[in-house]
Amino acid sequence: MEISAKEAILRYENGRLENQTALVAVEFPLTIYVNKEELVTIVCTPEYLEDLVIGFLTSEGVIRGVADIDEIEIIESTGHAYVSANFVNKFNAKYRSKRYITSCCGKSRENFYFQSDASLLESYNETETTLTIPAIFARMNEFEAASETFKRTGGVHNAGLCTADEVLLSRMDIGRHNALDKIYGYCLRNGIEVQDKAIIFSGRISSEILIKTAKTGCGIILSRSAPTELAIQMAQELGITAVGFIRGESMNIYTRSDRILMK
Amino acid sequence: MEISAKEAILRYENGRLENQTALVAVEFPLTIYVNKEELVTIVCTPEYLEDLVIGFLTSEGVIRGVADIDEIEIIESTGHAYVSANFVNKFNAKYRSKRYITSCCGKSRENFYFQSDASLLESYNETETTLTIPAIFARMNEFEAASETFKRTGGVHNAGLCTADEVLLSRMDIGRHNALDKIYGYCLRNGIEVQDKAIIFSGRISSEILIKTAKTGCGIILSRSAPTELAIQMAQELGITAVGFIRGESMNIYTRSDRILMK
Repeated sequence: MEISAKEAILRYENGRLENQTALVAVEFPLTIYVNKEELVTIVCTPEYLEDLVIGFLTSEGVIRGVADIDEIEIIESTGHAYVSANFVNKFNAKYRSKRYITSCCGKSRENFYFQSDASLLESYNETETTLTIPAIFARMNEFEAASETFKRTGGVHNAGLCTADEVLLSRMDIGRHNALDKIYGYCLRNGIEVQDKAIIFSGRISSEILIKTAKTGCGIILSRSAPTELAIQMAQELGITAVGFIRGESMNIYTRSDRILMK
Repeated sequence: MEISAKEAILRYENGRLENQTALVAVEFPLTIYVNKEELVTIVCTPEYLEDLVIGFLTSEGVIRGVADIDEIEIIESTGHAYVSANFVNKFNAKYRSKRYITSCCGKSRENFYFQSDASLLESYNETETTLTIPAIFARMNEFEAASETFKRTGGVHNAGLCTADEVLLSRMDIGRHNALDKIYGYCLRNGIEVQDKAIIFSGRISSEILIKTAKTGCGIILSRSAPTELAIQMAQELGITAVGFIRGESMNIYTRSDRILMK
């Protein structure tokens, strides 16, 4: 499917109006059915749809991973994804948007998660991975160069997966979380370990992005933008390194700076 | 409530690491109960919460407007909003994220909406309002100047309401739709007509943003960013003027250019 389309527009420039065509982002509604029940409609950029479905269902806790899926059929013409699963967490499927308050890690501070995130508290394991500051700048530049093309259509979210040496994957989507779900789904499908790598994200590190990062087992998230206060709290509790405002030759390390080395 | 917080960080700059404090955005989970039933948790910037709740419930079609609400109680300490309503559209409350495909306006092209949006097709009325190109540039500059402060915390969404002569309201939120819901809720509460005004938005005009605009009855949306293809389709069908890429001295008019005048 095309991820951008040409539209006839009126362009105002240099004091006059002119007929032109503009490239705009395609927004695609994808309705996910799990074992014939309608679960949700995701509005997304129509590429890597199978990865998106797998990443979404796993990170939302509806399934536990790719082994729970028998078959996925994506009908592009109607925007439907039919998933046959041999295991479904019905509670998470039903209560995705319901809140869950916990004091985790034995600390007294209360924290907020969505119901479907509660399971991550048991499953998250700490990573031993480290990154150097020069490597972070290099990977951020590489990541941003790779996402240049789609920027022309105006504001898109990018997520990537990198090692100290290279950006392995880069995905974009008009939906913030979709980009990350596409990365996660690809890794699940192809047996790529994420725990020893870092996630790069183009936008703000919100609590949801932080939780999705934790669920992949990844211990480092890098962003051009900043985390929120809630994401910082969660990163502290879950032991995730959050680095933000990576711009030019500077960056902010918000949590778990022990994984970031000078060189 | 505070909308930003100071966090201790490690800052890398000029080749060295330094302990500093950084201002970060507060992200606040607000769980909305309608007539004692838990509806949803919205993660938001904690200001104008009552406007947010009213704008959200109305634009999602759960209630029809402020007259349907008997009482709202917001408990900031726990992040709960309790709404007593004398009318609730139970169907929309339940099927908010379910899709709805329609061919509206007697045309053959099929279009996508969420279930709760279907009612807008009957309720939307066309506006006679026009804007001149110089007025659009002036209002965009005014709007962007007003939202400068929060930008320092890294990436936030802004929505505003303007006439040809001034920006009347400006709201920000870490959640895209929340900013618009805060505007809408404020207008509903204070009896401010939006049909003769324009909405200004900082980010991409997605189908959801376009639909929310249509629901307020507003016929013009202005953005620094671009609309998606789906938003353009919907704008055409609903008769909404979408203007994007308003930057410096240029802009793109995507739909219903008859409302935009040279001067």
